[in-house]
Amino acid sequence: MNQDKSNSPLEGDQKPIYLALSGGVGGAKLALGLSQLLAHRLFVMANTSDDFIHLGLNISPDLDTVMYTLANLNNKELGWGLANESWQFMNALEQLNQPNWFRLGDRDLATHITRTELLKQGNTLSQVTQRLTVALDIDAHIFPMTDQVVSTFVRLEDGSALGFQEYFVKEQCQPKISGYFFEGIEKTKSSKQFISTLDNPNLAAIIICPSNPFVSIEPILSIPETADAIRQHPAPVIAVSPIIAGQAVKGPTAKMMQELGIPSSVLGVAEYYQQQHGDLIDCFIIDHKDQHLQPELESMGLSVLAVNTMMNTLQDRVTLAGHCLSLAAQWTSEHKEK
Amino acid sequence: MNQDKSNSPLEGDQKPIYLALSGGVGGAKLALGLSQLLAHRLFVMANTSDDFIHLGLNISPDLDTVMYTLANLNNKELGWGLANESWQFMNALEQLNQPNWFRLGDRDLATHITRTELLKQGNTLSQVTQRLTVALDIDAHIFPMTDQVVSTFVRLEDGSALGFQEYFVKEQCQPKISGYFFEGIEKTKSSKQFISTLDNPNLAAIIICPSNPFVSIEPILSIPETADAIRQHPAPVIAVSPIIAGQAVKGPTAKMMQELGIPSSVLGVAEYYQQQHGDLIDCFIIDHKDQHLQPELESMGLSVLAVNTMMNTLQDRVTLAGHCLSLAAQWTSEHKEK
Repeated sequence: MNQDKSNSPLEGDQKPIYLALSGGVGGAKLALGLSQLLAHRLFVMANTSDDFIHLGLNISPDLDTVMYTLANLNNKELGWGLANESWQFMNALEQLNQPNWFRLGDRDLATHITRTELLKQGNTLSQVTQRLTVALDIDAHIFPMTDQVVSTFVRLEDGSALGFQEYFVKEQCQPKISGYFFEGIEKTKSSKQFISTLDNPNLAAIIICPSNPFVSIEPILSIPETADAIRQHPAPVIAVSPIIAGQAVKGPTAKMMQELGIPSSVLGVAEYYQQQHGDLIDCFIIDHKDQHLQPELESMGLSVLAVNTMMNTLQDRVTLAGHCLSLAAQWTSEHKEK
Repeated sequence: MNQDKSNSPLEGDQKPIYLALSGGVGGAKLALGLSQLLAHRLFVMANTSDDFIHLGLNISPDLDTVMYTLANLNNKELGWGLANESWQFMNALEQLNQPNWFRLGDRDLATHITRTELLKQGNTLSQVTQRLTVALDIDAHIFPMTDQVVSTFVRLEDGSALGFQEYFVKEQCQPKISGYFFEGIEKTKSSKQFISTLDNPNLAAIIICPSNPFVSIEPILSIPETADAIRQHPAPVIAVSPIIAGQAVKGPTAKMMQELGIPSSVLGVAEYYQQQHGDLIDCFIIDHKDQHLQPELESMGLSVLAVNTMMNTLQDRVTLAGHCLSLAAQWTSEHKEK
């Protein structure tokens, strides 16, 4: 944020809008909580660096997870894909000796086939995503971080590179990594929806969801000019920690931190973001289990709120979303008063 | 056939092989009967002029019908697609407001996605078909009439052209037609497997299955040099009538004949083939209900056999296949003796 108040987001008659940056499951849970409170006043920009082409189909795992979650169609048992899914396609595919490591449900296929076809017809990924979210009756605005192709690779200890979905799904995050990179990122532009959301005078906060800092949030912030544009915006930037008591709720965040030599703690996350992006983040929401780290985080110049960040129920998600909004309002009001 | 006996197919130690030309359902039924008797000694060349791209997927309706039928995986109730099919993909596709007039089952999708991907990787349709039939444990050799793209259109009364699947599936054959054409046919070559099958000295008969003469068999015979190559081959050409007592067992054959001004009878079919391709056909198998037309067919120079051609059961299919083989043997022996 930038403390110049000339462009305060809460002026005027319009109700405030909010921008969330999200990866997959953890981010989508908070996005769902936010969408319950905000409906069409929520703008979710999802990571697309995990996107890949499989069996000729354009797959956008994080966009789909956010979309399915906000449409209340997500599969809560699996943690990915659609509820009430069936697997007849996969069974038949196996009979044809085709690769089966990436599971595509029968209903989920409709999304991938539609996306692939609409992209082939010349639509941007933003346009495709808008059509899909409208069809699924989602009030919030969900859009990709960029309309260009970016591909996350992890660097293995032997120096070789592995595509993210192969690392994440096929290898189940087993290989030790020494780094990661986003192929093509330097040639991308932020999606237009991101620019117009930042330009909207009603933007009241930018929320970094509790997603993997390295492979979900970092790609978004690595798009040229994106981190700067967020830093210079007057609205507060609020990060919700994906780490609780040294553990990731889901996914390889903690394992990756250990392998990357980053302390696997809330502090490690905050230091990582500060090292990469300076004073981008204004407020940090941590779990009350990590409350003992609050003074150290505050000494880094962060406004810290310790609450329950474990989102087991819908109520947990809505409550955490409410904390984000009230923290944003409080921060804004404090920085107006000064 | 050509009555030069120097290249008689039954010489040598090898067992005879048979080539069937087939469209969809009716052709596939006879092909199944033949495959029960012949296994790997059966070569089925399927029409691919109905093929089209739908939702970005390469669909080959006749190849699939033959393939599924010979693998005993075909849906006997629907008459197309796979048995034990489910429709979750279509339900989800409808939710996304995508076109739903062409029904793609969940299991069937595995075939289309695999074919599309293998074609994109540079395989020919023949190579793709071979991989699919091997995966499905089919003994017979199934291959497309060509590896190039051909597209059947019907000509409507107002002079406009309609893609075949739109006519056949979307419009349920309702529009009256005044003709048909095979876009791209003049640039195609017969598939290599056709050439090598004709070159095989053990080829004992070429069987024209009871498929639609206009839009299933005619595209095959319209590939440059194909009808000539068949006519010049010493093996007998045996056609099984798709018309019984003036009616098509299934599909629009009889309706098309009426609209094209061709008598809707076995005679109309035989005359059509003769008009288009001269003395290509040696033997004609008709239903015993059409036995009264036998003299007239014989006066056209055809060897005629009247049997039950209605293939309701597997036994019916095998019996009719047996008639084809014994008629071929009889014809060959008669023409050797002369």
